[in-house]
Amino acid sequence: MTSPEQLAHPEQIPGYDLGRDRSARSPLTLDELAKLEAAAGLTDHDDRRLAEAGEILTPYAAEMVDAWRALLAPHPHLARYSQHPDGTADEAYAAASHPRFARWIIDVCTRPRDQAWLDYQHEIGLRHTHQKKNQTDGSDSPEHIPMRYLLAFTGPVIATTREFLARSGRPADDIDALHAAFTKAVMLNVTLWTRAYVATEDW
Amino acid sequence: MTSPEQLAHPEQIPGYDLGRDRSARSPLTLDELAKLEAAAGLTDHDDRRLAEAGEILTPYAAEMVDAWRALLAPHPHLARYSQHPDGTADEAYAAASHPRFARWIIDVCTRPRDQAWLDYQHEIGLRHTHQKKNQTDGSDSPEHIPMRYLLAFTGPVIATTREFLARSGRPADDIDALHAAFTKAVMLNVTLWTRAYVATEDW
Repeated sequence: MTSPEQLAHPEQIPGYDLGRDRSARSPLTLDELAKLEAAAGLTDHDDRRLAEAGEILTPYAAEMVDAWRALLAPHPHLARYSQHPDGTADEAYAAASHPRFARWIIDVCTRPRDQAWLDYQHEIGLRHTHQKKNQTDGSDSPEHIPMRYLLAFTGPVIATTREFLARSGRPADDIDALHAAFTKAVMLNVTLWTRAYVATEDW
Repeated sequence: MTSPEQLAHPEQIPGYDLGRDRSARSPLTLDELAKLEAAAGLTDHDDRRLAEAGEILTPYAAEMVDAWRALLAPHPHLARYSQHPDGTADEAYAAASHPRFARWIIDVCTRPRDQAWLDYQHEIGLRHTHQKKNQTDGSDSPEHIPMRYLLAFTGPVIATTREFLARSGRPADDIDALHAAFTKAVMLNVTLWTRAYVATEDW
């Protein structure tokens, strides 16, 4: 559903609003982001590894999204968040969100974590909740993904990425370092998404 | 700070309240837990791998806690949650919580995920928030750990565990499977902890 052309030119993907006025603004400052990056253990070394991971994963990004969706599909209580209310497939929604999801993998690895990036992470978070879900693509799927499912599914996202990194044929030590950097970066991304679920003083 | 004797007999660790009346009760049912395990991608295969991971990690559990605390220590905004209000070390608190943290690693791998386990995960979550933090050990450290730091730090917890699993000397494919199971189980645990932070209807 996602073409290499779309991944190379994400600004052409409908709803990909990084750096656009349509994106929400993050309530977090860049100073607070730096503190969160420290909690995630992200170092300059990791950022160099992430750049390498981005090169490796870009050709597989669309396949990774397919693999993750295939993990959700057998479970009605998970699959329903991208389906019509009667439980039938919403192919338009699946197709529209696919390139954004695939491009997210590349962004995890390659996007500078600046204000526009930070803002868009908050936008992505809101799009998982009743605040903004379904608005981007006009879907009639359930209006809110429980935070617990979003977080729990981060486990398979992280675990399955190792195999895609390993396709590079690099030595195991290299794959370890690439996978560690990816793990920490994904946790940072998903953590930022949870801001949409939690009262400011507790988050 | 943690002895092998304590890890083998966690019921003797002060404040380790799994299966005790002092533990909170989880608002989640076991049916809802099964749905969350599906989201985390945990299978019977993973549970067998977790049992193996538990055998490997038990001798290193105390060292792992030391390694994780060493990651937090250089960052005052993270270290403060286990310190006195004036920023000095709270050695009694560090010592009291150490065996519970180390035993948690083993529990991730080996404890049946039954009602008592589920209840205790909610108790652990509450102990990170203003609802119960500091009560177990009588500490005067800050009364609430922001959820974002708890989640972000899951990245290094997952990433650094690979090296401890690799000490077993098993083939890389085995380590991959052990690490994948551990990753998914940790995400399940931490997800359950976040229930203490989020309104029921959003979580």
